[in-house]
Amino acid sequence: MMDGVDERLRKQLEFALEIDKEKSIFRQTHLSGHGRNENDAEHAWHMAIMAYLLREYSNEDVDIAKVMLMCLIHDIVEIDAGDTYAYDPENLKTQKAREDAAKERIFSLLPLDQKEEFIALFDEFEEYETAESKFAHAMDNLQPLMLNNSNNGGDWKEHGVSADQVYGRQRKTALGSEKLFEVIDGIIKENIQKGSIIKE
Amino acid sequence: MMDGVDERLRKQLEFALEIDKEKSIFRQTHLSGHGRNENDAEHAWHMAIMAYLLREYSNEDVDIAKVMLMCLIHDIVEIDAGDTYAYDPENLKTQKAREDAAKERIFSLLPLDQKEEFIALFDEFEEYETAESKFAHAMDNLQPLMLNNSNNGGDWKEHGVSADQVYGRQRKTALGSEKLFEVIDGIIKENIQKGSIIKE
Repeated sequence: MMDGVDERLRKQLEFALEIDKEKSIFRQTHLSGHGRNENDAEHAWHMAIMAYLLREYSNEDVDIAKVMLMCLIHDIVEIDAGDTYAYDPENLKTQKAREDAAKERIFSLLPLDQKEEFIALFDEFEEYETAESKFAHAMDNLQPLMLNNSNNGGDWKEHGVSADQVYGRQRKTALGSEKLFEVIDGIIKENIQKGSIIKE
Repeated sequence: MMDGVDERLRKQLEFALEIDKEKSIFRQTHLSGHGRNENDAEHAWHMAIMAYLLREYSNEDVDIAKVMLMCLIHDIVEIDAGDTYAYDPENLKTQKAREDAAKERIFSLLPLDQKEEFIALFDEFEEYETAESKFAHAMDNLQPLMLNNSNNGGDWKEHGVSADQVYGRQRKTALGSEKLFEVIDGIIKENIQKGSIIKE
């Protein structure tokens, strides 16, 4: 494929082909309409559009191109590291080490300047400190909750998830958007009442 | 889900849930590694990242956030209209009417200002005139060609596609990026030589 293509472009295209594998990393979340499990690429696509659509609800002004790109690339490391379910304490312990190794391997396919840029963006997302990171995380939390709620909370029921666990993750959504956290809080309360989330 | 949520946000979230269906619209292209058929959401995710990654090769300066958003939403109409294969003359005839009806129904779920914005963006993509549209189309052409090439041209072979047909579509890639068209031209020539594309 790459005869006569210069080194920079060849590396960019190799990376572009490598990330195709993200479409085969499946999550615990199911598609609406009681569909199959969702994969990381679909999740990232959905988050990026939602970020643009709902940007007026960000607590702080955001560079929306940066938020969208963060959403699009935030799960690339899972090509090697696999998906870590938000309510799986054992896998959460090893998540950082697995993802660091993946980050180094996968982004090293890129030309150095783009490797550094993508790693910086990935790290910024993980650090949860900038306005863009907080709003991207709000999407990362809202998107699967929206799907799960549309399926009567089936994913929570399947894993026996408790209200404490859901709030433990979702309260941080308020760091990105107070307004969207209100919606999420309403959805959680409904699902506790329906018995889809364990009250304790 | 939507008790106590104001009308604007309720509409935005209904649209966000509706577009989940794009993950069930499958294309003729297969994932790398001789994988399953790709769906529209995965294709759009891949295009948006590639647009950012390869923006230096656009013939003209582009607003990259606009290109990415265009990539992300350009196939939403296929939720109703279905995927139209690039080399299927019968379905291509009815494509515009099917997609216009879909566009009206789906984007009408949004608040009016966002409906108008998303339709304008979709129309701009379709019209193939602005720098952003031309570069987004270059991604729409390069992404499946890259996957298909990685699978030894299996999709072309399956459909008995000729060099004239491939060039008919891919020559327009040069409107967005002369440089990327050079790569594409090399890939097409290799696949003609290998017999994956019919020479005529």
